[in-house]
Amino acid sequence: MTAIASFLIKYYVYTYVAHRIHRQQEIMLLTHANLATLEGSESYGLIPDGAVWMKGGRLQWVGSLAGIPKAARQDESLDLEGRLVTPGLVDCHTHIVHGGNRAAEFEARLNGASYEEISRSGGGIISTVSATRAASQEELLGSALTRVDALIAEGVTTLEIKSGYGLDIEAELKMLRVARQVASIRPVRIRTSFLGAHALPHEYQGRQDAYLTDVCLPAMEAAKVEGLVDAVDGFCETIAFAPESIRIVFDKAQSLNLPVKLHAEQLSWLGGAQLAAEYSALSCDHLEHATREDAEAMGRQGSVAVLLPGAFYFLRETKLPPIAAFRVHGVPMAIATDCNPGSSPMTSLLSAMNMACVLFRLTPEEVLRGVTRNGAMALGLEDVGRMRAGQAADFAVWDAEHPAELSSRIGFNPLYKRIYSGEIT
Amino acid sequence: MTAIASFLIKYYVYTYVAHRIHRQQEIMLLTHANLATLEGSESYGLIPDGAVWMKGGRLQWVGSLAGIPKAARQDESLDLEGRLVTPGLVDCHTHIVHGGNRAAEFEARLNGASYEEISRSGGGIISTVSATRAASQEELLGSALTRVDALIAEGVTTLEIKSGYGLDIEAELKMLRVARQVASIRPVRIRTSFLGAHALPHEYQGRQDAYLTDVCLPAMEAAKVEGLVDAVDGFCETIAFAPESIRIVFDKAQSLNLPVKLHAEQLSWLGGAQLAAEYSALSCDHLEHATREDAEAMGRQGSVAVLLPGAFYFLRETKLPPIAAFRVHGVPMAIATDCNPGSSPMTSLLSAMNMACVLFRLTPEEVLRGVTRNGAMALGLEDVGRMRAGQAADFAVWDAEHPAELSSRIGFNPLYKRIYSGEIT
Ligand SMILES: [Zn+2]
Ligand SMILES: [Zn+2]
Repeated sequence: MTAIASFLIKYYVYTYVAHRIHRQQEIMLLTHANLATLEGSESYGLIPDGAVWMKGGRLQWVGSLAGIPKAARQDESLDLEGRLVTPGLVDCHTHIVHGGNRAAEFEARLNGASYEEISRSGGGIISTVSATRAASQEELLGSALTRVDALIAEGVTTLEIKSGYGLDIEAELKMLRVARQVASIRPVRIRTSFLGAHALPHEYQGRQDAYLTDVCLPAMEAAKVEGLVDAVDGFCETIAFAPESIRIVFDKAQSLNLPVKLHAEQLSWLGGAQLAAEYSALSCDHLEHATREDAEAMGRQGSVAVLLPGAFYFLRETKLPPIAAFRVHGVPMAIATDCNPGSSPMTSLLSAMNMACVLFRLTPEEVLRGVTRNGAMALGLEDVGRMRAGQAADFAVWDAEHPAELSSRIGFNPLYKRIYSGEIT
Repeated sequence: MTAIASFLIKYYVYTYVAHRIHRQQEIMLLTHANLATLEGSESYGLIPDGAVWMKGGRLQWVGSLAGIPKAARQDESLDLEGRLVTPGLVDCHTHIVHGGNRAAEFEARLNGASYEEISRSGGGIISTVSATRAASQEELLGSALTRVDALIAEGVTTLEIKSGYGLDIEAELKMLRVARQVASIRPVRIRTSFLGAHALPHEYQGRQDAYLTDVCLPAMEAAKVEGLVDAVDGFCETIAFAPESIRIVFDKAQSLNLPVKLHAEQLSWLGGAQLAAEYSALSCDHLEHATREDAEAMGRQGSVAVLLPGAFYFLRETKLPPIAAFRVHGVPMAIATDCNPGSSPMTSLLSAMNMACVLFRLTPEEVLRGVTRNGAMALGLEDVGRMRAGQAADFAVWDAEHPAELSSRIGFNPLYKRIYSGEIT
């Protein structure tokens, strides 16, 4: 596949350059839009015959068509003929940079192989670690772009990318460099999370503390120095890292002034969510086994609950996250793809939205909020995911009449246009 | 939306015409292809460094690159650089022509409305019947094309379309005319199924026999006369039609020389599958509540089991179709989207393939066979869905190394090129 990979990279870089040249036309005014602002307490914050005024990549004004400010009326405008406009979508939890794929393992399991057999034959997360270590930065970029482009095609304008398949200093940095590169050659905001505490690499089997001291903490520091990291994440689970280890990682993050987030209570309850809340985590993610008390602690600290129905679906989980408790305690809920090659090989945020409705029984409004405002909040971004003056001018325009159409179907992409930082992309 | 609908139609017709003009380049030889022929007993019938020779829209020869016939060597060829090639995909069960959408109902249910409340406020299948009756043929075509195009973009080359939301003679014929129109303006084979016995319209409430006599049977006959129908289908369920009514429909079909198929044992067991087998049905569809005996009867008669994991997913079913029994009794299994606005608003056959693996535990090979050979068999097509001389030259070329990659992910479309009747489309 190397020939294909290198062809793909050239193709993507070329098309992007061609694209940059042609997208100088800056629209400043959107008219006749059905705006789902998600502001206020009304359903979706709908403004039926609305308009949006942008300048310099920022939202200047939003409101009813009738009330367009005088200063805006001469600007280049685009009549949306009643189409639905939402904030650009935010996918706040992905492992989208990785080597290889795990289709063979998926197939082996359906042919009856046990997890042990797969593990013995080099499968599981360690196979992704090997493939990621072996891949060049260019190869990682090429394969990531195919997935990133699938999300962009669905109106995603902000994307989180985690490290965590390198598990040695150089490979972790390589992953984060690729994540930053994506932002430089695609019209999408990237936020990176350092996930050195994702799994224990082979060479440190039985020596978790040594791994943290030798690899995880120094890699975090090096990533910070190089400007590669926006937040620090961990995987708190019996098969990964215990709460005491996560505490070591979080202490280091705090000393580097980096916000934290955590994969918590996914397969079992270990107390990770409350630990993360103690560190004022931006988010706790997965949370199938979280309790009422966890929800209360998260609500108190303002941590977002990032729900990942793709992993729930692929793992055929039956235990639902405590959604009623999140509602009661005012915990903002976000939805993300968890795009990863093992437990959630999913590159469609619209599909994740549908699964959040069908499998988790969230309402379409909660789900839309979960991939806009709340997704941004899970990344600590205050100027993204909402529709009010001063925000980044990121929008998705849909061939749809009502926002519920976005999450009620699967496999259908009604995106009409995508606006990133005030430009049609 | 009428302005948008009419714009869409013009846009689609225009792009199709532009497209027809530009696609005169007929490739006759595909080389360096990783062929999943699905022939023979080997896994996927793989031919790793394979070639395909086409002529006049038909497959002439398929085999190893080294064995290309002399006569083929001068023909216009396309080097696929090792990419995977499968037969063009077959979606053998859809209700893709319909008016309106049911997003509001989806949302109401998640906000706690009961089925009764939804039904009382005009929701459910009857709302689709009203919208379908109210829509012009042009409007129905425009909305269907957005969905058909989503399937075409995934490598679908053969598509079944059912009537069944008209439920009066004219509206049933209108749906089938739209289905035939799709085939004339898109590069895709369409097979139609007359589904007059789908639901009882309002005006015949409590008068099922009168509906059959006044509407269903005459509509079937009129459709046959106009050349609009390839098979006859029914919905055998407590909320739809009892086996005795289905028998009346099937007897009429037989008298018109039309093959039959049936929605059977989806929500409860009524004996529809065995009834259908008795009429040598092409397929029985859904089958969650089918038994071993049903599987045996279907195996004996050669009826295909069409599995619809999208409806299973949306309805949050827990009872699985008797897949082990289908394997034991040699019942060919097909997979389809069941694309419909109520219980399966799904326009991605790749997603249905993934759900068949994840939810039904089919293997990726069974699933690929289910959307090629077995899908074609469910439509009574003998020259589609396989890779052997004489077949229609319909192929999907994928940016993938192994066929399991097609069903192991969700929301990712690795289609590289699609070949329909020997032409790149
Ligand atoms: Zn994750
Ligand atoms: Zn159906």
